[in-house]
Amino acid sequence: MISFSEALQLVLKHSVDLGEEKVLLNDSVGRVLAEKIYADRDFPPFDRATKDGIAINYKAIEKGLIDFPISDIAAAGNPQKELHNSEYCMEIMTGAVIPKNADTVIMYEHLSIAQGKVRVKETVKKGQNIHQKGGDEMKGATLLKDGVLLSAAEIGVLASVGKSEVLVKKLPKICVISTGDELVDVNEVPQPHQLRKSNTYTLKAILQGEKIIANRLHINDDKEITKKELLKALKRYDVLLLSGGVSKGKYDYLPEVFKEIEVKKIFHKIKQRPGKPFWFGNHESSQTTIFAFPGNPVSTFANYHIYFKPWINKSLGLPSVRISVILDETFNNTTDLTRFIQAKVQIASGKLVVSLIQANGSGDLTSLSKANGFVIFAPNTPYKKGEVVQVIATRRFFK
Amino acid sequence: MISFSEALQLVLKHSVDLGEEKVLLNDSVGRVLAEKIYADRDFPPFDRATKDGIAINYKAIEKGLIDFPISDIAAAGNPQKELHNSEYCMEIMTGAVIPKNADTVIMYEHLSIAQGKVRVKETVKKGQNIHQKGGDEMKGATLLKDGVLLSAAEIGVLASVGKSEVLVKKLPKICVISTGDELVDVNEVPQPHQLRKSNTYTLKAILQGEKIIANRLHINDDKEITKKELLKALKRYDVLLLSGGVSKGKYDYLPEVFKEIEVKKIFHKIKQRPGKPFWFGNHESSQTTIFAFPGNPVSTFANYHIYFKPWINKSLGLPSVRISVILDETFNNTTDLTRFIQAKVQIASGKLVVSLIQANGSGDLTSLSKANGFVIFAPNTPYKKGEVVQVIATRRFFK
Repeated sequence: MISFSEALQLVLKHSVDLGEEKVLLNDSVGRVLAEKIYADRDFPPFDRATKDGIAINYKAIEKGLIDFPISDIAAAGNPQKELHNSEYCMEIMTGAVIPKNADTVIMYEHLSIAQGKVRVKETVKKGQNIHQKGGDEMKGATLLKDGVLLSAAEIGVLASVGKSEVLVKKLPKICVISTGDELVDVNEVPQPHQLRKSNTYTLKAILQGEKIIANRLHINDDKEITKKELLKALKRYDVLLLSGGVSKGKYDYLPEVFKEIEVKKIFHKIKQRPGKPFWFGNHESSQTTIFAFPGNPVSTFANYHIYFKPWINKSLGLPSVRISVILDETFNNTTDLTRFIQAKVQIASGKLVVSLIQANGSGDLTSLSKANGFVIFAPNTPYKKGEVVQVIATRRFFK
Repeated sequence: MISFSEALQLVLKHSVDLGEEKVLLNDSVGRVLAEKIYADRDFPPFDRATKDGIAINYKAIEKGLIDFPISDIAAAGNPQKELHNSEYCMEIMTGAVIPKNADTVIMYEHLSIAQGKVRVKETVKKGQNIHQKGGDEMKGATLLKDGVLLSAAEIGVLASVGKSEVLVKKLPKICVISTGDELVDVNEVPQPHQLRKSNTYTLKAILQGEKIIANRLHINDDKEITKKELLKALKRYDVLLLSGGVSKGKYDYLPEVFKEIEVKKIFHKIKQRPGKPFWFGNHESSQTTIFAFPGNPVSTFANYHIYFKPWINKSLGLPSVRISVILDETFNNTTDLTRFIQAKVQIASGKLVVSLIQANGSGDLTSLSKANGFVIFAPNTPYKKGEVVQVIATRRFFK
């Protein structure tokens, strides 16, 4: 049996390059940018008024003028105008182009206006209240690097440079597959010996956060059906996320079916709890990666975050960051397994403090909804209160 | 002009109750639960094997038996079987119902099997490897409270209890509206005096994170058109998020149009930077709430997070948490305005450390894509390095 870090290395080593695709700007949020974004013009593209008021030629101020007749109005959206007479002013609105022969803007708050004439009441500085052409970015400057995860802030940049379509990293086509004769559908009333499916719903929901719309499939504990369904799935999908069917049970057919259909085993079983019987492999001819998680909900959920999430991040070119947090209690891992303990991280005075959640074994229904991460505890290691430990986040720490 | 905290109080005071709606389980992730969720049966619903191996009656062990003929196999998904002879064992798979007359499970790793007979090689504890009926939750127990933000972990719980449809808080219908004659569409080539729209794309993208699909609209600087379009929008939407048209400019028609169409002004202008000219109001007969943000991208983005986000959280019954972080530099707010400075929060050894981002005024195109939050600085207050300050997060701190 391999260790957690060996398993993670092997999973990351088998990350894949899924290629690129163009999507509409509106659909690009949450995706990974696959092109560099350059300024297509200077930003701002012209000397731009940053206040509402008047534009003047500063020479008039140097000459001692304080009263200015109004020659015209420059509004945002007007082509550039010209201040023909330097002893006049032009009214100007925020966002408007500074007129030719003007170089300074004085805001309304510093003016009094009567009978079409303006009086300047405050000291004026040459060039004030003008956002200069190219002051933010020069044409050709790199605005966004490829590999960036696009959030709303980047969408604004993309819009500004006219990217109505954006080149992004492709996402894998994924099928989440449950196995087990005891499982019935969510809208069915289970018999006393049956349970409703939950893992495939959970996995489909987490994948929505990756912008992946996965398909769901259920396979009963029948070797021939399992074989047939998996062969079909290999052709259609880049990734299969399975739950159940990988333990020691007589009807845990997956490992032997994988062998028969030439899915290569990269490893099976890891020195960890929960999630020990995780089976990982790939199918070279169809280029499909297979994550076969043990069937209980906490094991599936943990392994998704421990292994699949770093795998998809690496496949998309994103880093996977483990978060360091301060342990709020002692914990002694007396086993030779890496332990992933459900925990709740909270923020207090600039510190991330984590407390462990008492879960009732790996079948506990509601413990996952009380946690926001798993703390990683190395084998045979005691941990003290106040020690810095690493956590794998399973949801946002705050709304 | 009112202060930031007065403005925020007024915005929160005008939160609304949008009601409830049923959605499909698959569509409920990211929504706020509007019903209590109870266990519809015991969890687990039967005494359940947690290991693959054999089920026995412990009395046989007390009698000194170590060899057991196999009577049958109990698989997951089988109705309950019975161990008719207490000196026999039944093979049993993880997830299967414990047979009648059996009370203990021994895993394969502790057995040797030859010729249909099993020999027990390790000490056995009565009742071991059984997850007892109701051991996680008793029928009728509350599994999820209403008001919970549904993440993947909760989706698993909802599936387990058969909620194929879920009652959630309704989301507001929102229109994001840009104003200004200088703006052209993203797929157009702007004239030298024009800019492409970006705010409505940014706002639509952020709202996707709230599961809200907003519509976009542009209104040119024409008073009659503005009036007509706003009257239509009031009828259709619960919230209007506008950008531009609320400053002192001659063509900043919004405040006067709002007055004419009986949208009540709750406030206009706040002692803050950026985002000072924010106009907030509501229209009682149509029950529409209006956030009219100043037009520059940083002001709109900041005010969305400062005001709209707490408003929508409160309207949905969610708390708004400000995050405390440790300031990595000195900052002296010498103005009488609350300052919101773009900043980058990073995690180091269990601490959240924030450094400020030098942005080039409120029109800076790319500064928002370098930040993950705004630090709040109170008016006329000096801040020391190492001090705990509050931050408004604008994206996840980690992927």
